Amino acid sequence: MQLTILGCHSATPLENAHTTSQVLEVKEHLFLIDCGEGTQIQLRKRKIKFSRIKRIFISHLHGDHFYGLIGMISTFRLLGRSADLHIYGPKGIKEIITLQLKLAKSWTNFDLFFHELESTKSQIIYEDDGLTVSTIPLDHRVYTNGYLFAEKTGPRRLDKNKIESLAIATCDFQNLKLGKDILLESGEKIKNKDVTLAPHPSKRYAFCSDTSFKESIVNEIQGVDVLYHEATFLNAHEDLAQKTKHSTASQAAKIAKMAAVGKLILGHFSSRYNDKSAFVDEAIEHFDIVELASDGKIFNI
Amino acid sequence: MQLTILGCHSATPLENAHTTSQVLEVKEHLFLIDCGEGTQIQLRKRKIKFSRIKRIFISHLHGDHFYGLIGMISTFRLLGRSADLHIYGPKGIKEIITLQLKLAKSWTNFDLFFHELESTKSQIIYEDDGLTVSTIPLDHRVYTNGYLFAEKTGPRRLDKNKIESLAIATCDFQNLKLGKDILLESGEKIKNKDVTLAPHPSKRYAFCSDTSFKESIVNEIQGVDVLYHEATFLNAHEDLAQKTKHSTASQAAKIAKMAAVGKLILGHFSSRYNDKSAFVDEAIEHFDIVELASDGKIFNI
Repeated sequence: MQLTILGCHSATPLENAHTTSQVLEVKEHLFLIDCGEGTQIQLRKRKIKFSRIKRIFISHLHGDHFYGLIGMISTFRLLGRSADLHIYGPKGIKEIITLQLKLAKSWTNFDLFFHELESTKSQIIYEDDGLTVSTIPLDHRVYTNGYLFAEKTGPRRLDKNKIESLAIATCDFQNLKLGKDILLESGEKIKNKDVTLAPHPSKRYAFCSDTSFKESIVNEIQGVDVLYHEATFLNAHEDLAQKTKHSTASQAAKIAKMAAVGKLILGHFSSRYNDKSAFVDEAIEHFDIVELASDGKIFNI
Repeated sequence: MQLTILGCHSATPLENAHTTSQVLEVKEHLFLIDCGEGTQIQLRKRKIKFSRIKRIFISHLHGDHFYGLIGMISTFRLLGRSADLHIYGPKGIKEIITLQLKLAKSWTNFDLFFHELESTKSQIIYEDDGLTVSTIPLDHRVYTNGYLFAEKTGPRRLDKNKIESLAIATCDFQNLKLGKDILLESGEKIKNKDVTLAPHPSKRYAFCSDTSFKESIVNEIQGVDVLYHEATFLNAHEDLAQKTKHSTASQAAKIAKMAAVGKLILGHFSSRYNDKSAFVDEAIEHFDIVELASDGKIFNI
């Protein structure tokens, strides 16, 4: 998995501080997570091909997380896209997009599928051979979901050094990958663990923005390799975090600790803080593997 | 009048080519004309104070002319705006903006007035002591208006050298500004033209985008000081201009010539042309006072 931060600032876009958007690459697939105003320009800056984006996940209908979506869809059309586009987001997102297309007498020359979300319980909303995407219901001023991207465990890997001297029937290679023991034509029994290696480890990435401090999300994100958790405020403004249903860096770090994640990435910073290092200083009091998001930064998971 | 081009490119925003938006300053008032995605960032780059914008004029509901509007309104709220905001644009614009505010459970802490347009005849849509704004109905794929900003003729100006030796009653200064002759207490008659100067010339600016070649707009823009006319295409793509209801640089120049305008500014360039100088070359065949718009360029009218 590779995560590219396109924007990680709250509220309103500035010349050098873009609102929330990320691209997650998983086994050749690109997933766009949130789409603040100007996301398409950020994608161009990072030289990410628009046509590779097949699925877009919107956390909630605040502008700094989705005002760039209609522009992306329009640009897809202008670029001659023909591949399906799937959009996951809160109920209402279809009405907004289709109203804008209708009033512009516009259309898409590709199929546009809306997957509108209403449940307040975690659910799997996408699944393919290699991955599942589940919602992480969050607690914000409007209906909001985080998203958990979980790779599936791959097949066991054949140990070339061990198998090259054995006369294995073609169909048994698949049985070995599935973890089964096999019988050679000679009658010799081959134990799976003697000739295969463990599967590549499957990775999990959790995106949680925007949300107040919500302990129960620990159930859904337990042990993920990387957690992106919003940290709009510092401790000095904890009251404001509570009032606006956002989190502080400390609160994000407490969640990371409880969930025993591999790494915490902080983002969604309020523009009131010029120096972002205090976010790390306050988080590290609770959880020590912490990094700051910044526009354009790439994280390999 | 001072015109600042924030963006003058068609279809889709690029890192260094922004979609349509302009700011017109008239006697301390700022008018925003169109509002493509990312307009708020362009305003910040030009250090234009958001609070000075009281009226926004949207030509039509294609994304490259208004996808930045909802973000502007959201940012106005976040900046604590209290002054009224007036938005002029095609019917439907209110529904789009209010739906987005509703689904975000958002609001404005200032009064938001929508002036929705439906007429296909030119009409005065705004007037104050110094200015009128009229629509210029255009011919595009959706209902579209250009806008004519016309300063009113100011008062005659007192000629200080001539009046300082005369015993003029206070109320007669106003009569002189209004063009009246006056009678001094001494009985001497003072002819207005002997002691006043002509008013400062009133300026007129016409914004015409997007439109096919439409001769009848000449009636509304006759003799304006500056005409901004879209020129999406060059002659080589005149068929495409016709099909998409846009104009070529030549067609814009023909309009400028027929209307005997003071200066023609070309904009709304298609991204297919890297070298913009051909737009001038083709326009100048028909009308020779022509300039190209570019993002950030300022025109004093």
